[in-house]
Amino acid sequence: MKLRVLIRLKPGILDVQGAAVQRALAGLGFADLRDLRVGKLIEIDVDAATPGAARQRVDEMCRKLLANTILEDYTIEAIEAERLAPR
Amino acid sequence: MKLRVLIRLKPGILDVQGAAVQRALAGLGFADLRDLRVGKLIEIDVDAATPGAARQRVDEMCRKLLANTILEDYTIEAIEAERLAPR
Repeated sequence: MKLRVLIRLKPGILDVQGAAVQRALAGLGFADLRDLRVGKLIEIDVDAATPGAARQRVDEMCRKLLANTILEDYTIEAIEAERLAPR
Repeated sequence: MKLRVLIRLKPGILDVQGAAVQRALAGLGFADLRDLRVGKLIEIDVDAATPGAARQRVDEMCRKLLANTILEDYTIEAIEAERLAPR
């Protein structure tokens, strides 16, 4: 079962990398940029009997290793069938 | 207009970071893990008249700076209304 985890810095936390990218884009002429934040994408294929069990397992991985829950928020999403092929 | 960009290594490219995370998770007892790949998430708020124009602008940012199209694939997605609040 394929799931993806999106990990972002919590709203109050300064995103230094995002600020640097935003400056670089402004320097390239992207004046229409209002905000930019950089996060992590983790795509996971896990053996599980049901989508619920897979999600629970990935949630456990996030809490134990993938996300730093002091600084970061994470969301878990199912990867839809049509997205599997191009991966 | 808020969009998100998901950047992943192309399928043939070795994902060293993903392999390291996968090993670490296996060491923590996650034997049900089949595959794991690490990518980047970039959330962008851009000034644009239409969703199409916003997407085109973000695509331009990807090609000019955000993605290394030799090694990486990217997809652009709209961030749905209900996802804006917790960001």
